[in-house]
Amino acid sequence: MNIPSQPIARPIVTLMTDFGLRDGFVGVMKGVILSRASEVEIVDISHGLPPYDIQAAAFLLDWAFSCFPQGTVHTVVVDPGVGTARDVLVLEALDQKFICPDNGVLSYIWPRCGDTHRLVCAENPSLWLTEISSTFHGRDIFAPLAAFLASGGDMDRIGPKRAQPKVLLPPLQIEFGTTEVDAEVCYIDRFGNLVTTITRSALLQWTEERGVSFNDVVIKIGTSRLTGVSPSYNAVEKDFPVAVFDGYGRLEIAINQDRADQVLNAAVGERVTVCIP
Amino acid sequence: MNIPSQPIARPIVTLMTDFGLRDGFVGVMKGVILSRASEVEIVDISHGLPPYDIQAAAFLLDWAFSCFPQGTVHTVVVDPGVGTARDVLVLEALDQKFICPDNGVLSYIWPRCGDTHRLVCAENPSLWLTEISSTFHGRDIFAPLAAFLASGGDMDRIGPKRAQPKVLLPPLQIEFGTTEVDAEVCYIDRFGNLVTTITRSALLQWTEERGVSFNDVVIKIGTSRLTGVSPSYNAVEKDFPVAVFDGYGRLEIAINQDRADQVLNAAVGERVTVCIP
Amino acid sequence: MNIPSQPIARPIVTLMTDFGLRDGFVGVMKGVILSRASEVEIVDISHGLPPYDIQAAAFLLDWAFSCFPQGTVHTVVVDPGVGTARDVLVLEALDQKFICPDNGVLSYIWPRCGDTHRLVCAENPSLWLTEISSTFHGRDIFAPLAAFLASGGDMDRIGPKRAQPKVLLPPLQIEFGTTEVDAEVCYIDRFGNLVTTITRSALLQWTEERGVSFNDVVIKIGTSRLTGVSPSYNAVEKDFPVAVFDGYGRLEIAINQDRADQVLNAAVGERVTVCIP
Repeated sequence: MNIPSQPIARPIVTLMTDFGLRDGFVGVMKGVILSRASEVEIVDISHGLPPYDIQAAAFLLDWAFSCFPQGTVHTVVVDPGVGTARDVLVLEALDQKFICPDNGVLSYIWPRCGDTHRLVCAENPSLWLTEISSTFHGRDIFAPLAAFLASGGDMDRIGPKRAQPKVLLPPLQIEFGTTEVDAEVCYIDRFGNLVTTITRSALLQWTEERGVSFNDVVIKIGTSRLTGVSPSYNAVEKDFPVAVFDGYGRLEIAINQDRADQVLNAAVGERVTVCIP
Repeated sequence: MNIPSQPIARPIVTLMTDFGLRDGFVGVMKGVILSRASEVEIVDISHGLPPYDIQAAAFLLDWAFSCFPQGTVHTVVVDPGVGTARDVLVLEALDQKFICPDNGVLSYIWPRCGDTHRLVCAENPSLWLTEISSTFHGRDIFAPLAAFLASGGDMDRIGPKRAQPKVLLPPLQIEFGTTEVDAEVCYIDRFGNLVTTITRSALLQWTEERGVSFNDVVIKIGTSRLTGVSPSYNAVEKDFPVAVFDGYGRLEIAINQDRADQVLNAAVGERVTVCIP
Repeated sequence: MNIPSQPIARPIVTLMTDFGLRDGFVGVMKGVILSRASEVEIVDISHGLPPYDIQAAAFLLDWAFSCFPQGTVHTVVVDPGVGTARDVLVLEALDQKFICPDNGVLSYIWPRCGDTHRLVCAENPSLWLTEISSTFHGRDIFAPLAAFLASGGDMDRIGPKRAQPKVLLPPLQIEFGTTEVDAEVCYIDRFGNLVTTITRSALLQWTEERGVSFNDVVIKIGTSRLTGVSPSYNAVEKDFPVAVFDGYGRLEIAINQDRADQVLNAAVGERVTVCIP
């Protein structure tokens, strides 16, 4: 493992919450971080997650972190259990750091961590704000920890080691059969596009093994059938359904310039099947 | 008073507006600030305030400022009177600086300022943009003043001293009786949680004087009665009402994982009573 | 032309997209930019443009850019044609740089560029991310180009010169007659205010030539008639219509503290006429 022990020149802290931007919650978290680590660059990943949607946070985190430089500190506060006995975890892995409640947010990153990681539970209140509210640990605990880590603080001071998170969501549902891939919608973006559990790379391998082209597979969702993965949303007429590989690196079902979730009446968990014709 | 007269290494300017993030208003304010003070760090507190809601701005400002480092310049543009004869005020107090229209935004900070403050009225157009529109003083006046102050500019150059703001909202309504605290909802956050005028510290003192525990008080709102202040939203079942001390440091009435404003049909101004059982 | 060839001390990259802030798209663009140009200051102009609204992006860009310092790199990703054969353009003009799809976003800036500009088409994949998705060029192409330009990268390395954009929207509709200005609503902001194609300066010249005051012109929209351009929204009673010169530098029709688009039932393209009484 090669994680720098010195403070980085201009460390980055990312924030991902379900706080929205209206009530000042994100702003005061930034105030706390900058009060304790003035050189930090803070980047918002999302504050518009559906309230309490741990699965969406886990999904976005697993996707977004790899676009950031080594040493970035990712801070996730989607935390319906705030004020209960749930733990706050700090994970050092994949050349980055993650601060999250132990509620499943790490679910999709955890299996990728391998042996070279460190996981600790935040139990050292001397690193937090002096007064801890029961409802806003983003400000009281997460923000000070982010500043501490971004300033090159030592993981060992945060709290005791943990073997693994207590709460892990089930893996994203996908099954590669002989003639069929059985998958699900796992995220719906603001355009209403349906992101599936099928990654581009996995589908590439599966079709290649079968000597089939992307252009020929049949994709079924609800009563709709699409033929082939298209190079862009615009490969079909406006208002028609289309399957593409999206910015999440996944097979996505969209309606060109309309909302697929509404047009196809689909939610997270909706079954998606890819077949060889 | 100990306010540094030198420019700070990396000064912070915060922005709080009702501009939203769609129309570029906030972006161009940042462009103006960075054009005049390139080393400034700009932090958004909120741009999603309900349009023209001076009371909400006053409430958030009074709460948020204390999380920021000494010397921070807070810029509030909730300004339904833009283009009229209303003044623009600059306040130096509580180790920070505040730029606001004289419309009540300073109402809750003002009583806390004590003697060691300076209040001036912006009357020196040489510090503003050359051309002043009638509707966008955020860009034309507030942003240049923020850059000026963040660069260590002298308060005296901004304009003449003022004894006090012309417009001050009435104080938050709360009355501590012998057996009852009579209060109100004063803010509703994006989760629909009802924030009350009762601060944690004041209620702590009031209950201690009466030898009562937080767990035993009865909280009345509309036709609902809650017993005790809970340690977290999750102290009750999903969809049940709960009273907590919130991130604003106040007694808050929530519905666990639902919207209290809708479920309890309550708005700002709704009466909330705390009684000894 | 006097565009600095050295990297600027603290270069600014602005972002304007229709991505919204929910799905992490903007966050990962920032991650890519900071991974490649760590000293960049990133400013959001808007991420709330109506999806695929090229005209609104062109309008906002043409207005916002001039508030930013020389050398700023403006990155616009409103790109319904992503993944098709549409080009990505980089324009150096007006002391700034612009990265946009060739879909009309440059329409209103282009006529102002004069001779001292450089326009190139992005064709050098060695400057992009290694893997290019079909739907998220914001991350894969635009963000790396922004980092490249903000670091002082050479325009010539981006791709071949272009004489002009392939796609240009028609100019904003306005006709200055002898006794009448015939114009349109060209943008509606989040308050529902109706921004027209009539700039303050053009109307000033037109009325001066006719020896008429702003206070006397008659403004017609739908079945409504307003007399005079007012100094502020508050020049009329609450809920009354008012014409002002707005923050975009244009004649705007508003309802004081209400939504003009709804009250007057007007959309972009709605005809607006200014007459001498």
